[in-house]
Amino acid sequence: MTTLTALKQRSLLGLKELDKEEIESILQRAAFWEQQDNKVNEVLNGKFIANMFFENSTRTRFSFEVAEKRLGAEVLNFAAAASSVEKGESIYDTVKTLESMGIDAGVIRLKPIGVLAELADKIKVPLINAGDGNNEHPTQALLDLYTMRNHFGNLRGLTVTIVGDVMHSRVARSNVYALRKFGANVQFCSPDNMRAPELDVREVSMDEALKSDVVMMLRVQLERHESGKLKSAEQYRAQYGLTVERAAKIGSHAIIMHPAPVNRNVEIDSELVEHPQSRIFTQMANGVPIRMAVIERALS
Amino acid sequence: MTTLTALKQRSLLGLKELDKEEIESILQRAAFWEQQDNKVNEVLNGKFIANMFFENSTRTRFSFEVAEKRLGAEVLNFAAAASSVEKGESIYDTVKTLESMGIDAGVIRLKPIGVLAELADKIKVPLINAGDGNNEHPTQALLDLYTMRNHFGNLRGLTVTIVGDVMHSRVARSNVYALRKFGANVQFCSPDNMRAPELDVREVSMDEALKSDVVMMLRVQLERHESGKLKSAEQYRAQYGLTVERAAKIGSHAIIMHPAPVNRNVEIDSELVEHPQSRIFTQMANGVPIRMAVIERALS
Amino acid sequence: MTTLTALKQRSLLGLKELDKEEIESILQRAAFWEQQDNKVNEVLNGKFIANMFFENSTRTRFSFEVAEKRLGAEVLNFAAAASSVEKGESIYDTVKTLESMGIDAGVIRLKPIGVLAELADKIKVPLINAGDGNNEHPTQALLDLYTMRNHFGNLRGLTVTIVGDVMHSRVARSNVYALRKFGANVQFCSPDNMRAPELDVREVSMDEALKSDVVMMLRVQLERHESGKLKSAEQYRAQYGLTVERAAKIGSHAIIMHPAPVNRNVEIDSELVEHPQSRIFTQMANGVPIRMAVIERALS
Repeated sequence: MTTLTALKQRSLLGLKELDKEEIESILQRAAFWEQQDNKVNEVLNGKFIANMFFENSTRTRFSFEVAEKRLGAEVLNFAAAASSVEKGESIYDTVKTLESMGIDAGVIRLKPIGVLAELADKIKVPLINAGDGNNEHPTQALLDLYTMRNHFGNLRGLTVTIVGDVMHSRVARSNVYALRKFGANVQFCSPDNMRAPELDVREVSMDEALKSDVVMMLRVQLERHESGKLKSAEQYRAQYGLTVERAAKIGSHAIIMHPAPVNRNVEIDSELVEHPQSRIFTQMANGVPIRMAVIERALS
Repeated sequence: MTTLTALKQRSLLGLKELDKEEIESILQRAAFWEQQDNKVNEVLNGKFIANMFFENSTRTRFSFEVAEKRLGAEVLNFAAAASSVEKGESIYDTVKTLESMGIDAGVIRLKPIGVLAELADKIKVPLINAGDGNNEHPTQALLDLYTMRNHFGNLRGLTVTIVGDVMHSRVARSNVYALRKFGANVQFCSPDNMRAPELDVREVSMDEALKSDVVMMLRVQLERHESGKLKSAEQYRAQYGLTVERAAKIGSHAIIMHPAPVNRNVEIDSELVEHPQSRIFTQMANGVPIRMAVIERALS
Repeated sequence: MTTLTALKQRSLLGLKELDKEEIESILQRAAFWEQQDNKVNEVLNGKFIANMFFENSTRTRFSFEVAEKRLGAEVLNFAAAASSVEKGESIYDTVKTLESMGIDAGVIRLKPIGVLAELADKIKVPLINAGDGNNEHPTQALLDLYTMRNHFGNLRGLTVTIVGDVMHSRVARSNVYALRKFGANVQFCSPDNMRAPELDVREVSMDEALKSDVVMMLRVQLERHESGKLKSAEQYRAQYGLTVERAAKIGSHAIIMHPAPVNRNVEIDSELVEHPQSRIFTQMANGVPIRMAVIERALS
């Protein structure tokens, strides 16, 4: 095995290329970390991890930071100003600079298409994708799988419907890639102009979506659709929102998921966020052991 | 005692509800921490504390961060962009997210009225108020009491005049509540349109204020009063500023206080900031052991 | 030796006043730290260091943070909003506040002229200059010397040409002061309206610059020259940029340096950034042991 191949196996760029056994081993290691009583461990003492968020995210960054500190690593946080649109070259220079300073791994979120793949070819430390444009968001999908499996015991045969703007959703993409490997039946329920036909996923109606085992709502990026593509928040809610009325129709065994942050009363009614069948804050809780497993894997 | 009551007793939301013995015990524990030679201790090893500042504050956040690190805790810092006005629901979602990730306590500063009390009902980890709209700022008042007692030995019978915009001041409120419990005599000297009659505090003239044991100047929020309520900085200084001339009239045993940051030459003349009778930087120094005591109490 | 003098010897405000032996001892200690296998050491356990960046800088701040954490110190980060122009008094109040809270040393970057020298007179903990307006940037020059000596073995007799806006460059100033002490021959190649005649450095043509042992390119501050002083980026590149064509003329033993971040294809062509003769990322790597040596010196 070449060193480069070994490195790529320690990086986590996406779930499309990751085989089922690798995903399985991450999920199992997350279960191990979830059961540990010790909040802070010594596994990564003396290792430096840089969280490089070229696109802002309070929640995901915190989740990684907690995971890194629970593993005993030294943490460096970089957040680009929300306003500055970083170009690929400038992102490369920043990541290369941190590599020169001796970081052992980098967690990276960025917007421009194709830059992460390019970085992974040039940077010699493992990189973990914390959100890559409209491409993948692998740790989110891993924590989603973990959450579903904790509830249902098994992913095989599960019907999961992802509702919303799948076209722009890295969460949807990573979930589709991973869930299919485990034999789940993934469906989309998305507005006409926000579809992702290249993923070859069956489109269903909102009524059909409510019959699923998992109803996974996506965040509406209101700012993304100011060009008139998206109707008002009210119209969106009426057509694709998980309202209290609609939620009453889902099965008593089913669960509601959302990658958060939620737009309350747009894609999901406020009363449902902490509904007994909602797993939204459970997903966030599960993010920590999942990320511990992913970071440990990167540095082992 | 119910668990919820126990939790509330470990949170610090305000001094209005805290009895004198509790305050006394915090002040004594702060004195203990001030005397320790070890900069970093192991008391809170393995505990995670999130500093959630939905309203920016360099000084208060640093003071909490030093206190947390001196206690050996892991620290997570969150600061909302100065521009974004966070609504109550969004604040709740962020705090709940951090709770889901396993933080052991949260330090929180926020603007919207009533949100902190609501959070404390819903969140299961102890919360420490680091500035709650126009309501309370308990750690500031605790460090103020600590500073006064270090100088005067006792708070009973002490005359403390708070000068400035008491209407909008959480510092004034928390000081009034706490000082009264200790038998101090609190007075206000405030502009007509910035009073807080509901606190039932005697208003005095600036001349009268200078006869106090403690002259506590408040920061003028020039930005708050752009609507014409506040006259120019020069006019404010002329009427309510602690000028060098006025300072010459205060008693030789008296002290000058200010919660900082100061507007030099507006509410206080620049030469007075480090005057021998000023305790402004002493207050900041005292903030660290006070916050150590408050955080230790929250997690013990 | 008075305490104040001792303090000043532990601070690092600039290289102009530092004698050759002091610089030598920092360079040697950096070499020691570079060779250590342990990423994190215990030298500064229990010490608090505040990074106070009143002028933003991702790279320099990260470099100091890595250095501080590798020494085992507790780190506090302060970054002023890019937009806010801090005045000297406000900077003093912030630094004094952090001193009151018990920090053991401060790393500071700021813009206003003369404020750092004033701070060093008033603040009782050692201060390390991380960029002082147009005055000095000593740790950058130290890492530059370290990089040159690693390549050439000796600085005596070396010809170093600094190309660009030397008038506004604290990097140029610190390099001139330090390199002269070691017997290097420093030259400038700068546009007419960006010269620093007070440094008494020989000006050479771009052709002459290419004959140097070290060609040190400065970053063009395009924003600084919007008043029409600076021609377009294209014009700058044509006259003073290190283009691929020009780089072909430098000696095979020579090296290319740049303090970074680079403006690719303005002062240096993109292809040259990682050219075999470029030391740009090596400079960044060397920044860490240099800053470890400087910080250790401040606190020993």
